[in-house]
Amino acid sequence: MAAIPSNIPEKTVERLSEYRRTLLSCYEQGITHVFSHVLAGMHGITAVQVRRDLMLIGFTSDAKKGYDVKELIDFIGNILDSPEPLNIAVIGMGHLGQAITKYFNDKGLKLRITAAFDNDPQKIGREYFGVPVYAADDFEHEVDEMELNLVIIAVPSEAAADYRLPIINAGIKGVLNFTSKPLNFPLGIAVENYDITTLLEKLAYFVKDSEV
Amino acid sequence: MAAIPSNIPEKTVERLSEYRRTLLSCYEQGITHVFSHVLAGMHGITAVQVRRDLMLIGFTSDAKKGYDVKELIDFIGNILDSPEPLNIAVIGMGHLGQAITKYFNDKGLKLRITAAFDNDPQKIGREYFGVPVYAADDFEHEVDEMELNLVIIAVPSEAAADYRLPIINAGIKGVLNFTSKPLNFPLGIAVENYDITTLLEKLAYFVKDSEV
Repeated sequence: MAAIPSNIPEKTVERLSEYRRTLLSCYEQGITHVFSHVLAGMHGITAVQVRRDLMLIGFTSDAKKGYDVKELIDFIGNILDSPEPLNIAVIGMGHLGQAITKYFNDKGLKLRITAAFDNDPQKIGREYFGVPVYAADDFEHEVDEMELNLVIIAVPSEAAADYRLPIINAGIKGVLNFTSKPLNFPLGIAVENYDITTLLEKLAYFVKDSEV
Repeated sequence: MAAIPSNIPEKTVERLSEYRRTLLSCYEQGITHVFSHVLAGMHGITAVQVRRDLMLIGFTSDAKKGYDVKELIDFIGNILDSPEPLNIAVIGMGHLGQAITKYFNDKGLKLRITAAFDNDPQKIGREYFGVPVYAADDFEHEVDEMELNLVIIAVPSEAAADYRLPIINAGIKGVLNFTSKPLNFPLGIAVENYDITTLLEKLAYFVKDSEV
């Protein structure tokens, strides 16, 4: 197999993740091959974009039949997935934290939510969708033996900054932050700040614009 | 006031939304002025980026004191916000739909969730966080009199495509899709396909990469 390129651009990584989910659904429907323009159409992008992304990772198509669905799924898996499943903790088991946990642990991905943290004594010690809830105050202590790789922050925005140092101290390498408080981390910790308000305000701006 | 530029790039619109939230929090703390490098630091980006974004919208700073916080909040509001609040419907009132509704209707934004849709007879007719739930089967009929501007799709991925045509028929102008099924809409309908799996797989990729 060709060497896997490192330094794939962020946007390409996102699209590879998306292609794979579409391909898995094609595969389940018994579709064995797919042309770039068909895959592109399912994602609302151009065939050129699809071909460029797959060329970048070194995957080629059969000119007559298109891309082999199963091969491409495995190929993308080799690039995106870690050899071992990554362990994720959710901090904050309100509606959002529960939604994420439920959504995720159904999916059989190479990512699994293994722990949750909350302040609510009613939640601590319980399990949600098979995931045990620990006391958020003990975060730094508890994570010590957990071998966590990623955390998802789903607490109220005011509380987000409280977890910054404990996350750094715990040696966690990736943070998905759903609060509206952007958090900065030192180099070596990957962060995605993801505020739903931003998504909606952006959408609203483009909607407004289209009415002018 | 200077004319508001149209065609602001997507990424700049996102950052303006984020700057505003940070500025609002500064304002509540009694901070009246902020320098570009301070604002940049709070978002983990460069001061050059901040200055470029604000120059693009025609907002200037006082060389000695930095940006006027209150003026900049209002200035960004003039660009992002519609004169009238936009009405949003949430389709799917599971954990995610409820999380979004709760999160949002606390915030006093120019965006408000006014209706929800679900299939579950136990939910139809109830209110969640002040938002009434209607039968998803009647979506096309119900939205007729609702003057909805945006919808958020928070149903299981298998069901997402069922709402594509009804959304188009209802004349809705913007869609935020949280399922893992990307949806395409005709020109004139803005779409953000937003799958949490993609965010996590991307993060996982960069975490993995940093360990090699």
